[in-house]
Amino acid sequence: MRRYDLALIGFGGVNRALAALIVERGEQLFEELGFALRVVAITDLRAGSLVDADGVDLAPLLATTPDELAFADMKGGSRDPRNEWVIREVQADIVAEATFTNPADGEPAVSHVRWALEAGKHVCTTNKGPVALHGRELRELAAQHGVSFEFEGAVLSGTPVLRTARRLLSGLRITGVEGIMNGTSNFVLGRLEDGADFEAAVSEAQDLGYAEADPTADVEGHDVQLKVMILANEVLGADLRREDVVCRGISGITTVDIKDAADKGLRWKLVGSVTRRADGGVDARVEPVALSADHPLVGVSGPVNAVAFRTDLLGTVTISGPGAGPIETAYALLSDIIAIHHAQANGAAASSGHVLEETVHG
Amino acid sequence: MRRYDLALIGFGGVNRALAALIVERGEQLFEELGFALRVVAITDLRAGSLVDADGVDLAPLLATTPDELAFADMKGGSRDPRNEWVIREVQADIVAEATFTNPADGEPAVSHVRWALEAGKHVCTTNKGPVALHGRELRELAAQHGVSFEFEGAVLSGTPVLRTARRLLSGLRITGVEGIMNGTSNFVLGRLEDGADFEAAVSEAQDLGYAEADPTADVEGHDVQLKVMILANEVLGADLRREDVVCRGISGITTVDIKDAADKGLRWKLVGSVTRRADGGVDARVEPVALSADHPLVGVSGPVNAVAFRTDLLGTVTISGPGAGPIETAYALLSDIIAIHHAQANGAAASSGHVLEETVHG
Repeated sequence: MRRYDLALIGFGGVNRALAALIVERGEQLFEELGFALRVVAITDLRAGSLVDADGVDLAPLLATTPDELAFADMKGGSRDPRNEWVIREVQADIVAEATFTNPADGEPAVSHVRWALEAGKHVCTTNKGPVALHGRELRELAAQHGVSFEFEGAVLSGTPVLRTARRLLSGLRITGVEGIMNGTSNFVLGRLEDGADFEAAVSEAQDLGYAEADPTADVEGHDVQLKVMILANEVLGADLRREDVVCRGISGITTVDIKDAADKGLRWKLVGSVTRRADGGVDARVEPVALSADHPLVGVSGPVNAVAFRTDLLGTVTISGPGAGPIETAYALLSDIIAIHHAQANGAAASSGHVLEETVHG
Repeated sequence: MRRYDLALIGFGGVNRALAALIVERGEQLFEELGFALRVVAITDLRAGSLVDADGVDLAPLLATTPDELAFADMKGGSRDPRNEWVIREVQADIVAEATFTNPADGEPAVSHVRWALEAGKHVCTTNKGPVALHGRELRELAAQHGVSFEFEGAVLSGTPVLRTARRLLSGLRITGVEGIMNGTSNFVLGRLEDGADFEAAVSEAQDLGYAEADPTADVEGHDVQLKVMILANEVLGADLRREDVVCRGISGITTVDIKDAADKGLRWKLVGSVTRRADGGVDARVEPVALSADHPLVGVSGPVNAVAFRTDLLGTVTISGPGAGPIETAYALLSDIIAIHHAQANGAAASSGHVLEETVHG
């Protein structure tokens, strides 16, 4: 049997949900998937860091509220997150990165991913920044060190959008992608349709926990812009930078625009799209679009997000599901770990022929 | 490099489209996917059979209309389809089965699949019957002979519904499935909403080539019933027989029903559903359901089909795409062949460690 030792970077909602999954269904996962998971290190900006080579006891940590959690008092603990040291030096097979990302340069997530790959560790991340802004460099780094770099959660949390495109649509040509990929904008546009004004709709989204204290990234399209870059670069093989993606958000949409659209049977949505040009290049943009009633994405609203792939042989294939949420995003990390396991099992098989009997740690 | 030799059973729209794909993009497939495809035998009820161990020259066959195609006059040809002999005796790696299926016992497709698996050949089929009615037996037969049995095309043509459920949703619990899986019923219900009466809508569907000469299987729900059995048995691990699945079609829906629903903001759809009961068992049914405007499947109409998976960690994940069509279904066969290739590469790797250099035929 195999066991993977994990280092959790960031211990907010997502990695707490992953830890809870490991506690609650570790054995079931082992039976179903053929591997066990153990957490050997956790780092967190607020709680500090905790390292235990014999496996961190997760249940007490999950029983403590995030505000009260302090690793400094525990054996193997420190007040300092010690991210670089933990990522580089702690013996772990997989680094599960779920901190945050600056839309300008992707930090600190980019450095976390880079350190882990340089140290020969597999990485799964839920952050868009590393993939959107440094995808090619990090992919090459992973290849160079013979490890996996997985990031299903960067687009639509655990809804398997990237993996569908890369695994289940092989053999056909994806000519374009169109998606509704931001729940806050969806919510705000829905409230505008109900008659609310923009400011009120945004505060309501904040009160409900959909929107951040600073809603700019959501309503101005920057969040979708990074997702569009990931789809363009990772699915259509482009090499776009942020400035290559036209980006207009929904803050300019007025109640008059909404009413005019409704009169014509149209509904405004914030749409991210990628289109393969005739010359082989790729155009990508984020902008509000008034969709007709028969458009495949017109019914996508609220917390549901969707991505439609236009293909040559299958026409349009659309995947919809949750766009966010701690458990949904923790599942993205689990699906990444499953992908790492498969790659590992197949790779190890080629060299040793003893996949099933082999353990990761001697 | 690998090459797979194929026997095409049935040379109607689907296997002709597969042959055209091999002719038109064989080299591209080889570069992208790492394997080559060659057709060494074709059988067809009307055209007879054709066997060429050096590879059938497909282009002239595709240039001939189905009505005029007669293998008897060609080298290696016969007027007789010789299905059993071709399937059992011809040296082929993969049998691509695309004939037809009787909803009562699944024949003749079931025998084709059984013969191929017994002969140690991988099978991909687009027919629902073998999977819905004899799935367990055929899966066991495949395992016993160390070969693959693939059938993505049995549900929603090439739209990757089954493979998403089995590969991309692992690690979570699928608690139910709900789908709109019959384009003819979709079309007819749409025309009823436009004010047409039932008989007229069905003839229109026939004129447009959506519905068969005998539309019973489509409008009475029998087609969806088999798809529901496949979802229940292959995705939720049930062992349902046909009589376990309640089945009501759309022929009882009147224009009054349609109008009453519209007044309440509802739309009738023919829905196939599978639900995991609290006791672990599975309920499955096919029936017209009046869906509310915010139901995830309410916008699914015409030739688009969709399947929604209810899961514990991700909520509802929905995949929509084409439900039928020769090219779309041929892509299902290609996606099955890709799956066979991966299983083969990984399996062969474990025993030999020379995946990339190995050819299937020495």
